[in-house]
Amino acid sequence: MESLDNQPPHQVVIVGGGFGGLYAAKALAKAAVNVTLIDKRNFHLFQPLLYQVATGALSPADISSPLRSVLSKSKNTKVLLGEVNDIDPEAQKVILGDEVVPYDTLIVATGAKHSYFGKDDWEEFAPGLKTVEDALLMRRRIFTAFEAAEKEVDPQVRRAWLTFVIVGGGPTGVELAGAIAELAYHTLKEDFRNIDTCEAQVLLLEGLDRILPPFAPELSAEAEASLTRMGVTVQTKALVTNIKDDVVTIKQNDTVTEIAAKTVLWAAGVKASAMGKVLTERTSAECDRAGRVIVEPDLSIKKHSNIFVVGDLANFSDQNGKPLPGVAPVAKQEGEYVASLIQQRLQGKTLPPFHYIDRGSLAMIGQNYAVVDLGFIKLTGFFAWLFWLLIHIYFLIEFDNKLVVMIQWGWNYFTRNRGARLITGREAFQEIEFEDTNGYYKQDKNRPTVNV
Amino acid sequence: MESLDNQPPHQVVIVGGGFGGLYAAKALAKAAVNVTLIDKRNFHLFQPLLYQVATGALSPADISSPLRSVLSKSKNTKVLLGEVNDIDPEAQKVILGDEVVPYDTLIVATGAKHSYFGKDDWEEFAPGLKTVEDALLMRRRIFTAFEAAEKEVDPQVRRAWLTFVIVGGGPTGVELAGAIAELAYHTLKEDFRNIDTCEAQVLLLEGLDRILPPFAPELSAEAEASLTRMGVTVQTKALVTNIKDDVVTIKQNDTVTEIAAKTVLWAAGVKASAMGKVLTERTSAECDRAGRVIVEPDLSIKKHSNIFVVGDLANFSDQNGKPLPGVAPVAKQEGEYVASLIQQRLQGKTLPPFHYIDRGSLAMIGQNYAVVDLGFIKLTGFFAWLFWLLIHIYFLIEFDNKLVVMIQWGWNYFTRNRGARLITGREAFQEIEFEDTNGYYKQDKNRPTVNV
Repeated sequence: MESLDNQPPHQVVIVGGGFGGLYAAKALAKAAVNVTLIDKRNFHLFQPLLYQVATGALSPADISSPLRSVLSKSKNTKVLLGEVNDIDPEAQKVILGDEVVPYDTLIVATGAKHSYFGKDDWEEFAPGLKTVEDALLMRRRIFTAFEAAEKEVDPQVRRAWLTFVIVGGGPTGVELAGAIAELAYHTLKEDFRNIDTCEAQVLLLEGLDRILPPFAPELSAEAEASLTRMGVTVQTKALVTNIKDDVVTIKQNDTVTEIAAKTVLWAAGVKASAMGKVLTERTSAECDRAGRVIVEPDLSIKKHSNIFVVGDLANFSDQNGKPLPGVAPVAKQEGEYVASLIQQRLQGKTLPPFHYIDRGSLAMIGQNYAVVDLGFIKLTGFFAWLFWLLIHIYFLIEFDNKLVVMIQWGWNYFTRNRGARLITGREAFQEIEFEDTNGYYKQDKNRPTVNV
Repeated sequence: MESLDNQPPHQVVIVGGGFGGLYAAKALAKAAVNVTLIDKRNFHLFQPLLYQVATGALSPADISSPLRSVLSKSKNTKVLLGEVNDIDPEAQKVILGDEVVPYDTLIVATGAKHSYFGKDDWEEFAPGLKTVEDALLMRRRIFTAFEAAEKEVDPQVRRAWLTFVIVGGGPTGVELAGAIAELAYHTLKEDFRNIDTCEAQVLLLEGLDRILPPFAPELSAEAEASLTRMGVTVQTKALVTNIKDDVVTIKQNDTVTEIAAKTVLWAAGVKASAMGKVLTERTSAECDRAGRVIVEPDLSIKKHSNIFVVGDLANFSDQNGKPLPGVAPVAKQEGEYVASLIQQRLQGKTLPPFHYIDRGSLAMIGQNYAVVDLGFIKLTGFFAWLFWLLIHIYFLIEFDNKLVVMIQWGWNYFTRNRGARLITGREAFQEIEFEDTNGYYKQDKNRPTVNV
């Protein structure tokens, strides 16, 4: 695989511009290879902050960076907008509809999507949070719920509009619950005339015995106490057995409860994106139950040393045999590792197996309160919150100047306002209907859910 | 109509939360009346900056203010989300579907929408710019065009993707043309590998003999010269006779030209919103040819002294018998006038007829260049540009702290970057298709155009 001067440069194709793919591309910017980064979207999305878009604190563009502008200085790198639907490992090609892109080395980093554990009909009632469109759909549902409650005369229905159920007590669920509690109990308090938004109920449901399972148990307990102080009802060991027609059914120990809620948000499970299936069909790679591709110690797949899988799509087992979690730092380190390995190989060298350096976990609970678990130190409260802010600003700035986010946060902090609480677009909404000026969004229950 | 202590307070209903309606509501915040502001959307949109959303410089939330938060301190004011579809002037009620809202005084401020002079089939090919959704549709089309050109192998088709036609040489058309020229010739210059974005063509078409007709002729000439220097091809006396299948047909003098362009933006005409028709059907009010309601000297309508029309929906003729233009300052002054008149009437007094104070016109051409016509002074170039910025920031801040916009502009200015150039949502796009992760946006030519 050594590059000779009269040979065409080594072609690296990266599928997916999330953390895994983009960090791999950035690490290859000065390497003696040609890189093609393929993504369906023209921007990288900073997913850890997506919940802030869903709750009206930030705009989509605040947490997105156009891929072309991130990579415009990487003259060896081409960005291609499109969706890879197949690969041909023998011919060393990826296929995008009619288009074919040859590769010498392939990095697949197409991530995960949310999963309803086989109950796909729940998605309609309980949207998940993976894309900008998902976030805007959640935003519309949350703010429309308050508007509908303001108009509703039946107290029972009004209560259902003011009940927000978040399924899943991981970082995303905790952050959503905290943000919605802040909206209801602070931001929107003065805004309505018929309802008291403080009567809203925010329920956070977790199937395990504590929220934030990746954190130390004492931090989980502190986070739960803090959420409770903020007004969130946290229920652990609570299994959701059904979501339908504005009712969430929960089994807790042996008690079955039904909760009437118009707004249910899904933060519970993920599964591998479609490329996982393509890889297992076209190669000898194997999948775990969530559809993630099981990778070798160097992140390549079995019998295909020139195909790598990084990020949420990869199942890489650490020293304890436990797969690494689907978080940004894992994807980033994996992407950078593969970029190094490719360069080493071109010089006839190799690298020791991938090793993930876990720098810790952090989760925002609400204003002035976060939890940070760095292993050697555990923080809660204001300093954890400040640490959370600094870390996120640091990583945002790596791609693009996101000074705007900082200013927006500063402003939101002092005013407790949320400027981005626009209800835009349309969807086949259950009970109320807001038409767009152009009549684009006429009610039509048969149309799939779309959002602005 | 005098308010006695044992009578219920005088009910003012305002339909529409644009400049006219919102300024009327703000001016009534401390009056001894009850106010209900009804709007289809939950936010006020600062329309003069909408072209910056369409061209990726700002996010929708940057130029929007939630109506409830603007009016949260006005304890006499209720915001109602909904669409008024009828009025009953005898019973003094407005009707929103099943809901009925009584009024003592009614202010209708529902504005205008774009008009294709009877050629409604042009809308599909040449979207206009009135709503957030319109702006995001334009944004998607503009940035998708560059992406499609990058992929296109046929040089003729590629040229059509890189041709942008803006129909209408008023302020919006001029601002769109200038912003697209900056994108093509500066912002995106380094971002593509197969195309040279500097080869893009930006055409601005105006039917009259000069662009920016509300300005003094010498400013029109300077604006045209400045646009030409920026790379825009300005064609005056150019009548668009057809827009179909990526071809714009133009008649200039007696020459007919066909231009192959995949992106056509409409900034040419407006007509009254649907409430104009409702008013003429239910009252003795009359309309002009654009559907605007002809109002009395005090902005009320004929024989209904308690129904007022303000803003773009009103046709108010000034001293010269010419209707006032559909711009924000007119709407603002009209809204404030009616608010004063209502308060005077409650005290048994009246006001002299409405008189518009024209403080001038301004239009942004591009970086460091604007035109400002204040009547007594005319500015072009850098100082006009600075004046434009200050005026817009001043008016944005009136509703909400839009410090973020200032920072974003500062950043855009120094980097010539545009952070908000996300391609989101879907539409039945002519030739290329970008699927959303969730498969929401599957190609379906029969579905109406929707956008994120």
